[in-house]
Amino acid sequence: MAGNTFGQVFRITTFGESHGEALGVVIDGCPAGLSVSAAEMQSDLDRRKPGQSGITSPRKEADEFRVLSGIRNGRTLGTPIAIIVENKDQRPEDYEALTHAYRPSHADFTYQQKYGVRDHRGGGRSSARETVARVMAGSIAKQLLATEGISVKAYVSQVGSVKLDKPVTDLSGVDNNAVRCPDEATAAQMIGLIEATKAAGDTIGGTVTCLIEGCPVGLGEPVFDKLQADLAKAMMSINASKGFEYGSGFGAVPMHGSEHNDEFVKDGDKIRTVSNHSGGIQGGISNGMDVYFTVAFKPVATLMQNQETIDDQGNPVVLEGKGRHDPCVVPRAVPIVEAMAALVLADHWLRNRSVKI
Amino acid sequence: MAGNTFGQVFRITTFGESHGEALGVVIDGCPAGLSVSAAEMQSDLDRRKPGQSGITSPRKEADEFRVLSGIRNGRTLGTPIAIIVENKDQRPEDYEALTHAYRPSHADFTYQQKYGVRDHRGGGRSSARETVARVMAGSIAKQLLATEGISVKAYVSQVGSVKLDKPVTDLSGVDNNAVRCPDEATAAQMIGLIEATKAAGDTIGGTVTCLIEGCPVGLGEPVFDKLQADLAKAMMSINASKGFEYGSGFGAVPMHGSEHNDEFVKDGDKIRTVSNHSGGIQGGISNGMDVYFTVAFKPVATLMQNQETIDDQGNPVVLEGKGRHDPCVVPRAVPIVEAMAALVLADHWLRNRSVKI
Amino acid sequence: MAGNTFGQVFRITTFGESHGEALGVVIDGCPAGLSVSAAEMQSDLDRRKPGQSGITSPRKEADEFRVLSGIRNGRTLGTPIAIIVENKDQRPEDYEALTHAYRPSHADFTYQQKYGVRDHRGGGRSSARETVARVMAGSIAKQLLATEGISVKAYVSQVGSVKLDKPVTDLSGVDNNAVRCPDEATAAQMIGLIEATKAAGDTIGGTVTCLIEGCPVGLGEPVFDKLQADLAKAMMSINASKGFEYGSGFGAVPMHGSEHNDEFVKDGDKIRTVSNHSGGIQGGISNGMDVYFTVAFKPVATLMQNQETIDDQGNPVVLEGKGRHDPCVVPRAVPIVEAMAALVLADHWLRNRSVKI
Amino acid sequence: MAGNTFGQVFRITTFGESHGEALGVVIDGCPAGLSVSAAEMQSDLDRRKPGQSGITSPRKEADEFRVLSGIRNGRTLGTPIAIIVENKDQRPEDYEALTHAYRPSHADFTYQQKYGVRDHRGGGRSSARETVARVMAGSIAKQLLATEGISVKAYVSQVGSVKLDKPVTDLSGVDNNAVRCPDEATAAQMIGLIEATKAAGDTIGGTVTCLIEGCPVGLGEPVFDKLQADLAKAMMSINASKGFEYGSGFGAVPMHGSEHNDEFVKDGDKIRTVSNHSGGIQGGISNGMDVYFTVAFKPVATLMQNQETIDDQGNPVVLEGKGRHDPCVVPRAVPIVEAMAALVLADHWLRNRSVKI
Repeated sequence: MAGNTFGQVFRITTFGESHGEALGVVIDGCPAGLSVSAAEMQSDLDRRKPGQSGITSPRKEADEFRVLSGIRNGRTLGTPIAIIVENKDQRPEDYEALTHAYRPSHADFTYQQKYGVRDHRGGGRSSARETVARVMAGSIAKQLLATEGISVKAYVSQVGSVKLDKPVTDLSGVDNNAVRCPDEATAAQMIGLIEATKAAGDTIGGTVTCLIEGCPVGLGEPVFDKLQADLAKAMMSINASKGFEYGSGFGAVPMHGSEHNDEFVKDGDKIRTVSNHSGGIQGGISNGMDVYFTVAFKPVATLMQNQETIDDQGNPVVLEGKGRHDPCVVPRAVPIVEAMAALVLADHWLRNRSVKI
Repeated sequence: MAGNTFGQVFRITTFGESHGEALGVVIDGCPAGLSVSAAEMQSDLDRRKPGQSGITSPRKEADEFRVLSGIRNGRTLGTPIAIIVENKDQRPEDYEALTHAYRPSHADFTYQQKYGVRDHRGGGRSSARETVARVMAGSIAKQLLATEGISVKAYVSQVGSVKLDKPVTDLSGVDNNAVRCPDEATAAQMIGLIEATKAAGDTIGGTVTCLIEGCPVGLGEPVFDKLQADLAKAMMSINASKGFEYGSGFGAVPMHGSEHNDEFVKDGDKIRTVSNHSGGIQGGISNGMDVYFTVAFKPVATLMQNQETIDDQGNPVVLEGKGRHDPCVVPRAVPIVEAMAALVLADHWLRNRSVKI
Repeated sequence: MAGNTFGQVFRITTFGESHGEALGVVIDGCPAGLSVSAAEMQSDLDRRKPGQSGITSPRKEADEFRVLSGIRNGRTLGTPIAIIVENKDQRPEDYEALTHAYRPSHADFTYQQKYGVRDHRGGGRSSARETVARVMAGSIAKQLLATEGISVKAYVSQVGSVKLDKPVTDLSGVDNNAVRCPDEATAAQMIGLIEATKAAGDTIGGTVTCLIEGCPVGLGEPVFDKLQADLAKAMMSINASKGFEYGSGFGAVPMHGSEHNDEFVKDGDKIRTVSNHSGGIQGGISNGMDVYFTVAFKPVATLMQNQETIDDQGNPVVLEGKGRHDPCVVPRAVPIVEAMAALVLADHWLRNRSVKI
Repeated sequence: MAGNTFGQVFRITTFGESHGEALGVVIDGCPAGLSVSAAEMQSDLDRRKPGQSGITSPRKEADEFRVLSGIRNGRTLGTPIAIIVENKDQRPEDYEALTHAYRPSHADFTYQQKYGVRDHRGGGRSSARETVARVMAGSIAKQLLATEGISVKAYVSQVGSVKLDKPVTDLSGVDNNAVRCPDEATAAQMIGLIEATKAAGDTIGGTVTCLIEGCPVGLGEPVFDKLQADLAKAMMSINASKGFEYGSGFGAVPMHGSEHNDEFVKDGDKIRTVSNHSGGIQGGISNGMDVYFTVAFKPVATLMQNQETIDDQGNPVVLEGKGRHDPCVVPRAVPIVEAMAALVLADHWLRNRSVKI
């Protein structure tokens, strides 16, 4: 499969179908000598997995990983790190009805047309289960970045029309509630909305915002591989994402330059900007301020309602609303957004080592 | 410079500083045997160049291109196509005051920090003049796609708070007005807003929307190189862009799945969807419907007002508002968005040739 | 680990340490719809594995593979194909003495210096056991090429000073003897030489020649990715290889152009050359004639004799000659050479699909 | 054109047809802050150009380069370095007879088949004139390596059957004679042989050996991008090369391990090997000893004799022996071999910066 590798120096290659033998990732370019915490990796996987709360899919996936290579005695060897998660809670019979149907706003039709064949079980390769691989790799990237004091944290900033209406500075409570919104009052509203949506057999969209603190000046390659360009690609490669903005984002459109420009000031022996509409990136290169961006996710396409569609012969069929699915993707998207952001940052941090003589 | 090549099969490598000898591009992977119209290339360059109307920078750049290799007798040879535009209207004295100053929301500071050196004249490599190279390559990509009936057209959909409030289906009039908005009444408002902004020595943001018609089913690689992911990267690599959304975009967030899903129907012997919230892409692969997306651009950072900032020694300096600059970037961004979209499509169209046995 | 992916369109990424959990490969870009024979894959693995004859290492490795993704019901899905072989016959105690010693002409010293850490067990990642991954992927590449009538076959052409002194046209008997030389008389001499060398606790070099029949005209990208350049890289990436030549090779050096040039003639409606000093490649592109090349392998570095060396503290140590090793690498290198050649050919065959409009 | 970029971090993209407007190169990834000597670049170009002595082609090509971007005030900016050489001494009438003929052992036939079109003038893109671009880039790579004390020097080691029969340690006199052999007596024999060959209207093969001194330990990525693998690809991508060997090379084949192994010893506080059959590379990684390798070149295909061939309609034609060509390619290949080796080394030197935490 083309386009299955991400990153230039810190790079990952993933594999696996939703209901195949295993999901996995090969990480190349992770520097030798990094101490890797298996507990942190499992924690990230657990934040992604279904069944973790009342507002996620009730599927049970243990998602226990097995390291096949590249780490010995808890440290990276500099060699490829291969990690797999074997698939266990498979119920192929859940998918028999879907052997020939094209589910609306899913990838059944496009996969069939592109490849002439597809694994229909749980969406096969198009399933968001593929992100297990990203989360494992992203966890290692986060651990690498942490050695430099760079932290990557995401949170839910909007569900349906319920949104955080003020900037968030304290992200310590993100995992304290099921929806992963750092403001408890807003979180409660979001959870209420998701529960009501679920009760109606429907789904709803949301946004995830990511904050990167401690990013050094100089990351990003300023023509095509601008830091924001690689972040945008990373985010738009996540299942169900529909939009990306960084810094002021779409909010910059009605603004004037005189209010949007970020004034430089000297702060001790450091240079910083007074405002941060730039989202920590200027000319594609990090400027030392916080990097932040937001990703829009559509409502999940699988409904607990009947839907009309057609099958691969063009015949009309009715999809029954059953199975085990999420009413809203954003709570589980938080660790995925973090993982992809960390992969981009780790890659650019390493790439930046060869920029000067 | 890392990150200076874009595309996998149809790929471009660009070079040039704003006030250096020349801007240029090397196009690799363009199939042999394509008839290339020099007039179309020049037309695209002319749509990008400054001085084309009262609402763009009054700089005069002839932007005449010279093909150094790869095209003979009007047809591509299959070999690298190198094209340059020599820089002529250079006024380095305009930039002397900027030798040491860090202009707000520009890349002066980040380049200096990253490389330890920079060409301050007109922003050097960070200047949007670099997009000359993209437009030349994109014009050839558009001509390649046209042989397959694929058209790539962009237009201005918003300036400040003035926005197109209805979907546009007829793009024939895009170039009939200076702002490149296909609705004349809205265009007039936009132009008025830009002129007022310019008169105040200020600048304003905007959005460009792009419509790809005739896109075949099957383009896009469904994990990391999803069609929307590569489009997002392409767009976020354009100077001054702040956000990207495709299909329903951020508008999907408050929606329910039951209204957002695109129902499949049989239409003659073709399969299509009734609505197109998917923006023509499902699972990262084009589904045969129109592909469309919108890009947000910030207000131009160079103002015709004095601004306070600091220099590379950390001393406060005042930037005088002078020079020849655009009050709003979107009219000239239209051909750049088209170029980058065409490069992505051409690349994926060629990549798709090896997908099946 | 950088440089761990091979190929552009048909591309592989491998992983695994010699005595880690598993060896494996991820194959990307294999077209959908290919029927894959597991028996052929196992047969290639069996030709590579130790313990297959009296002149190879007596280690017992079952080398049974497990497909984790990408193949369903015997056909490729177009998604990443992940395959692993778990390590079973591990005797880490065999390697304890090597924890700190730098074995002569092995990679112990360079790995330690480069990464600051290494898995000393059986050479870790530097072990030729890594080629298990290549052989699995190469077997699929060979099956892909076979659908086009392209065959890739290698044989032993020299062991020590015993060499085939005439061109070989019939390769059907290659696997009939332990050394994989298609001429039985020469094979017997080679086997005798290897047995004598083994009895002396020593090792010996050899060459493998590869013949690609049915190669269509047009494969190879004519500047840096010339067909011979990619074949050379592929071969020189195999453990213990020391040289590569194609067509007339080093034999061309003393020749005059008037005898070396390959005259073109018309043969029915086909064009061919009378001689084939070009080895089937002109200007980096296959010309439709047989492609052939030869790879030199050094004598195995591990001896059954005591050797003096130093350890990672710079202290002198004596390596005892023990363990389970090959006296000559070439019989087992045959399937590896085939695999790497097939990977190059499959990649270029797919790349060539986008060369013309 | 696919395969037209070489290198991962320090990477070049070349363009240009032999008789087109210009030859050129874009260098990406050269670190910022390198002082570049234009005189050294011109000197390398002069060593490559025809007409420099009685044993090279009498064509006159000034080969004066023009830097279009990336270098300012003699130092690299970190941005893409674009350099061109305009073509001047063009005599297209020399090539009219070749519009339709397929010259033996040239790329006319394969280009025509692959692309369906070709620029027949002087071989177009297949001409060795393309190496002008490599030499310019290689000169900058050599200057980069020199800042680390790494030197890359090549010399002619064989012409026809005349070969250097002893190892060469002093390369200071390489450019003192027209054939670029460091031993004057052998050089005289080689020159005599080339002159006699030229007088007969014929051509002859040769070898170039390259010596890299001062190479630090640790360069090379030990699976597919082994240092010797990338060197082999680089060398086999040069026009007319037929073989590559490093260290003991093909000479290792008849050797036993007990004589071939390079014993490690402590030398002060450094570790080195007593012999250097490894050619300075073990496990794909440089070990701090001298790296050396040899490249075989075939006799030039263009003869000053009549040759029979066919044209693109399959009709027999006779090529007349005329034009301005080299009787032996190796004297001019010396700077090309150096350039390609320097590009590989510079790339791996930069790649190695991200190997450890």
